[in-house]
Amino acid sequence: MKKRGLASDNYAGTFPEMIEAIEQCNKEHARSYGYDSKTEEAIKEFEKIFGPEINVSFVFNGTGANVLGISCVTQSHNGVLCADQSHLYVDESTAPEVFTGCKYFPLKTNSDGKIEPETIRKAVTRRGDEHHPQINTCSITQPTEYGTAYTLEELTEIGRTLNEMDIIFHMDGARLYNAALALNCSFQQMTRDVGVDILSFGGTKIGLLFGEAIVFFDKNLSKNLKYKQKQSMQLPSKMRFISAQFLRLLSDDLWKRSASHSNKMAQRLYNGVKDIPHIKITRPVQSNVVFAIIPTEWNTPLIDHTPFYVWREQTNEVRWMCSFDTTEEDIDDFVNQIKKLADKS
Amino acid sequence: MKKRGLASDNYAGTFPEMIEAIEQCNKEHARSYGYDSKTEEAIKEFEKIFGPEINVSFVFNGTGANVLGISCVTQSHNGVLCADQSHLYVDESTAPEVFTGCKYFPLKTNSDGKIEPETIRKAVTRRGDEHHPQINTCSITQPTEYGTAYTLEELTEIGRTLNEMDIIFHMDGARLYNAALALNCSFQQMTRDVGVDILSFGGTKIGLLFGEAIVFFDKNLSKNLKYKQKQSMQLPSKMRFISAQFLRLLSDDLWKRSASHSNKMAQRLYNGVKDIPHIKITRPVQSNVVFAIIPTEWNTPLIDHTPFYVWREQTNEVRWMCSFDTTEEDIDDFVNQIKKLADKS
Amino acid sequence: MKKRGLASDNYAGTFPEMIEAIEQCNKEHARSYGYDSKTEEAIKEFEKIFGPEINVSFVFNGTGANVLGISCVTQSHNGVLCADQSHLYVDESTAPEVFTGCKYFPLKTNSDGKIEPETIRKAVTRRGDEHHPQINTCSITQPTEYGTAYTLEELTEIGRTLNEMDIIFHMDGARLYNAALALNCSFQQMTRDVGVDILSFGGTKIGLLFGEAIVFFDKNLSKNLKYKQKQSMQLPSKMRFISAQFLRLLSDDLWKRSASHSNKMAQRLYNGVKDIPHIKITRPVQSNVVFAIIPTEWNTPLIDHTPFYVWREQTNEVRWMCSFDTTEEDIDDFVNQIKKLADKS
Amino acid sequence: MKKRGLASDNYAGTFPEMIEAIEQCNKEHARSYGYDSKTEEAIKEFEKIFGPEINVSFVFNGTGANVLGISCVTQSHNGVLCADQSHLYVDESTAPEVFTGCKYFPLKTNSDGKIEPETIRKAVTRRGDEHHPQINTCSITQPTEYGTAYTLEELTEIGRTLNEMDIIFHMDGARLYNAALALNCSFQQMTRDVGVDILSFGGTKIGLLFGEAIVFFDKNLSKNLKYKQKQSMQLPSKMRFISAQFLRLLSDDLWKRSASHSNKMAQRLYNGVKDIPHIKITRPVQSNVVFAIIPTEWNTPLIDHTPFYVWREQTNEVRWMCSFDTTEEDIDDFVNQIKKLADKS
Repeated sequence: MKKRGLASDNYAGTFPEMIEAIEQCNKEHARSYGYDSKTEEAIKEFEKIFGPEINVSFVFNGTGANVLGISCVTQSHNGVLCADQSHLYVDESTAPEVFTGCKYFPLKTNSDGKIEPETIRKAVTRRGDEHHPQINTCSITQPTEYGTAYTLEELTEIGRTLNEMDIIFHMDGARLYNAALALNCSFQQMTRDVGVDILSFGGTKIGLLFGEAIVFFDKNLSKNLKYKQKQSMQLPSKMRFISAQFLRLLSDDLWKRSASHSNKMAQRLYNGVKDIPHIKITRPVQSNVVFAIIPTEWNTPLIDHTPFYVWREQTNEVRWMCSFDTTEEDIDDFVNQIKKLADKS
Repeated sequence: MKKRGLASDNYAGTFPEMIEAIEQCNKEHARSYGYDSKTEEAIKEFEKIFGPEINVSFVFNGTGANVLGISCVTQSHNGVLCADQSHLYVDESTAPEVFTGCKYFPLKTNSDGKIEPETIRKAVTRRGDEHHPQINTCSITQPTEYGTAYTLEELTEIGRTLNEMDIIFHMDGARLYNAALALNCSFQQMTRDVGVDILSFGGTKIGLLFGEAIVFFDKNLSKNLKYKQKQSMQLPSKMRFISAQFLRLLSDDLWKRSASHSNKMAQRLYNGVKDIPHIKITRPVQSNVVFAIIPTEWNTPLIDHTPFYVWREQTNEVRWMCSFDTTEEDIDDFVNQIKKLADKS
Repeated sequence: MKKRGLASDNYAGTFPEMIEAIEQCNKEHARSYGYDSKTEEAIKEFEKIFGPEINVSFVFNGTGANVLGISCVTQSHNGVLCADQSHLYVDESTAPEVFTGCKYFPLKTNSDGKIEPETIRKAVTRRGDEHHPQINTCSITQPTEYGTAYTLEELTEIGRTLNEMDIIFHMDGARLYNAALALNCSFQQMTRDVGVDILSFGGTKIGLLFGEAIVFFDKNLSKNLKYKQKQSMQLPSKMRFISAQFLRLLSDDLWKRSASHSNKMAQRLYNGVKDIPHIKITRPVQSNVVFAIIPTEWNTPLIDHTPFYVWREQTNEVRWMCSFDTTEEDIDDFVNQIKKLADKS
Repeated sequence: MKKRGLASDNYAGTFPEMIEAIEQCNKEHARSYGYDSKTEEAIKEFEKIFGPEINVSFVFNGTGANVLGISCVTQSHNGVLCADQSHLYVDESTAPEVFTGCKYFPLKTNSDGKIEPETIRKAVTRRGDEHHPQINTCSITQPTEYGTAYTLEELTEIGRTLNEMDIIFHMDGARLYNAALALNCSFQQMTRDVGVDILSFGGTKIGLLFGEAIVFFDKNLSKNLKYKQKQSMQLPSKMRFISAQFLRLLSDDLWKRSASHSNKMAQRLYNGVKDIPHIKITRPVQSNVVFAIIPTEWNTPLIDHTPFYVWREQTNEVRWMCSFDTTEEDIDDFVNQIKKLADKS
């Protein structure tokens, strides 16, 4: 396998800073399951970022964060709205169903991969009808699976729509950092301020060794959080080692360097290929990923050169995902390879 | 909080060797979700220890390992036997029920905390009766919650009993290392050779940063493992960082140094207090823990000195758990504190 | 098979009056799923019996009533207390676990099969501890599985205990009618007045064709009832046919004739056999059932004569259950058969 | 409320013959939970209809039949395909998710409400990929929610498609009788012969008091049926009263009279309104239902006259459902009412 590819940002390892942070808190004993001082410190850092009166915890992985968050606010007769290509809908096996009992309704998105308020409004039907799941939560991915970022205006409109219909606003922010830079806004502006109630705040993909955060902006919604976290097998005994990583990630702008770099690499790739004949860029490049339709016969030689995934077989739309450790050389080398193929075509 | 206490082995941090192992595999990209070469290497190490034709995977935590293992071999109308004080029964919230649907039947144990074959035999009732859960799995903890180790003879007898009744043998080996030293036997002798079908093989409590292993000795039982692992939210995207830790733990006898040390510290503590009036040692000291009944009025001053848990309030039975980083000074200091209290009593 | 046996009251058919009641409401169309006028009438009858401000619905079977009731007041991280020989614990497969996610803790009962308040108090542990299921509901069977009836004083004491600990009081009243006669009290005195929150009110065993009722004495607890009822597949489309049966059962004292008769038959049986050598009556005879230990060699000839169940194989304790259609001749004939066996022994 | 409406066939009561059948088997005692001779007889009747080597049981309601059938052949990491307007998808709350854990994927149907083989083929993706539910079952409704009947050719093609992809063929036949007459074929031809593995065979809507049947054509798939039936709270204790009804329904062509009558009433209605201006018949009328788009302002006066449901608010498509007790006068009266409205428009 090539040293670094464009398959996924979870193929990358972790920042040396994360290992350092772990080392530094690997001293003496600390209470387990989150009752330690490092976790307390990390929570304070979150309060700086998102404001007071929040409820934060740290979990193992992204599926866990999504499912745990939703399980805190749903009962088993509820329904949940989400994009039809969202990770929650197509990449988390049946974890959402098994742990919450709810039905997940797939919403069509526009060509940018975004859910439109009108789509939500039409999907919320049969309230009070016991024969139909009672929709009470909507999950939005920011940035979307296509790497596009909902604007603050779009988020505000979604938040208003959900609020009017008394529906809980869940945000899957596995790569929220990249969207924050794309929109040039704070995390709070993009979440709490637009009405988000529960946030899955990514860790692994930005460069942690492991660990994701879950943030509730309304403590009433999270009153069963600790019970559900244990029950969903997402309560780390040595939580301090995740807390330490988040603390480091957030407190010295490491996240900014990481996300800014991977975003730039995606732009560099975009700029390198956008004018090449036979390639069609399919989605606006707003974060750390480029989607393109390429000739099918390029797949094998290109993937051999640098691994990546074919996203949609029908159209041969491929996904090129940059990570914190993608180098300019990696990109240039890949672009050159594409150019060679283009020349031969 | 005191530097090191006797509350739990998961209050301890991790070995420097674990951090080193992570650092060493923090290079380049690797396929996520276990399809990497480090995981492959770690699996080979497990095959050296347990023999060929096994199925191994790495998960986040102990509850996850137990529940995932059981979920692979049960259907929701099944019943599972386990000790009434087992972690599975009293310390994993309702994760076992939610994820498997099964009913867990609590078995009385003898004073050593061990389940006797006769108890199992009597508990398996109403087979073929659709009104009653169909018991098909029995979970044994080695060493037990009381730190006692089932002998090979006892395990063999349990294995034979379960086999005769066509019941799957699950072993919760969160601290299996300590039992291996207590029995002076290999891991294989204590598991596969006595008929264990599925093993939760601990990592966190022996000193990993995070991570547990799950081992199936019969591949037929594990054919849905990868699906259940994802579904139970126990599939780490950067699995290589758990694999690397297990590899290091097992390949250079680090586990032996760790478990041997914590076992010795428990013996040192036992020897230090066994003849002190007012203290009654309640369970044989065979691994890294001492259980004792002490005067209730000692609780506050002693816990202030060195944190530990009261295990049974009714009798004021306390648990003193040693870990890989417990020092001789910690123990001697604690024993002296007890002696001071004894002198005053 | 013999015309009538002593195996179970659900081996009996139904009252002619029930068929008549169905016939009478088999006219024209009625809204389905409980929105019909017959159901409305039946609910009013329940309000006469239990007082105002209740929430009543009708379901298919007893397991459904129990599980549905509990599902309305629990979340999946909760625990539920019940007698270790209760129908809920040993005769409803894993329906309670699958549908509620909760863990069910089996409580020891006294020799009358009753749970004592002290047992409840000791069982409620580790509140606020996320590692342990949070017990919030206790289910009491009236009359018990052994046919004994909790006195009003005993129920009041249980109600007070549960109330003090903020635990919901569920009553499984599959044969509540027989207890009402045994205690010579009203249904309300035995349920609402002693603090019961949710009642499974039997139908099938007293003589309905099919159907059970579920009664909530606190509307706050039942706000999801209709959703849970549909979700648990216990929402009959032609509910009016259950409602009509309950209406008839309750409004003309049919229930009293039925329960009084089956209670009398049990007394007649008790009186017939209590002085026979070799027979030991094991439980007070307070409703429509007699428990006795008989010589094992009598099982075959007696069951051939009149079917019944061996309740506990270890002691050869047998259960003789009377139903609304048991005749005096049935009992006398059975007693004579026993006397013949006794003479030969 | 009007005597009889067009709202639903479950607003109708039951045949006098059903009550008679119940009366006739209301004699003496019978073993409960399906171990009685009447159930045995009914099963033999099913074997006459569907051929030998089947597994049949009787349950309370249609949701129960669907969910129980699917739960016998799925594990919780599986996915199930069904029409996006199917009862299973939109009218059974979250019972399917809660009881099976599976994800249900909604398939688009053609304008007749039928799933096309090509749609199935495209929906089955990511086999062997643990991140995605593993689709192993497809549920087809015959006749469809729009009252159209898949032809034998269409069913054969679906059966072949599913068989090729090793997917289990479930059929929801809540109104299978009406389709049998529409296609002029036997039940076996429409189910077992085209590859159906599991059939929900309706009872309530054709005119039973209560009760549905579930039929497995492959005994290997049903080996856990009795356990799942109890667990899903769908095991009637006095099953004989359902068996007796099915026996009567099937053995003397009562089903044929019923379905033939309701089909004819739908045709009569169709003929009465098809040429009326302002009305657009939207689906082929092949069973006992007519779908039509009518002017919105007609809703109130028409529903006041004869109750029915608006099926799709967007287009004001309404559903007129005939039942066994719909009379020619009912239809003519309703048609006249429509004509009056049409005249005024």
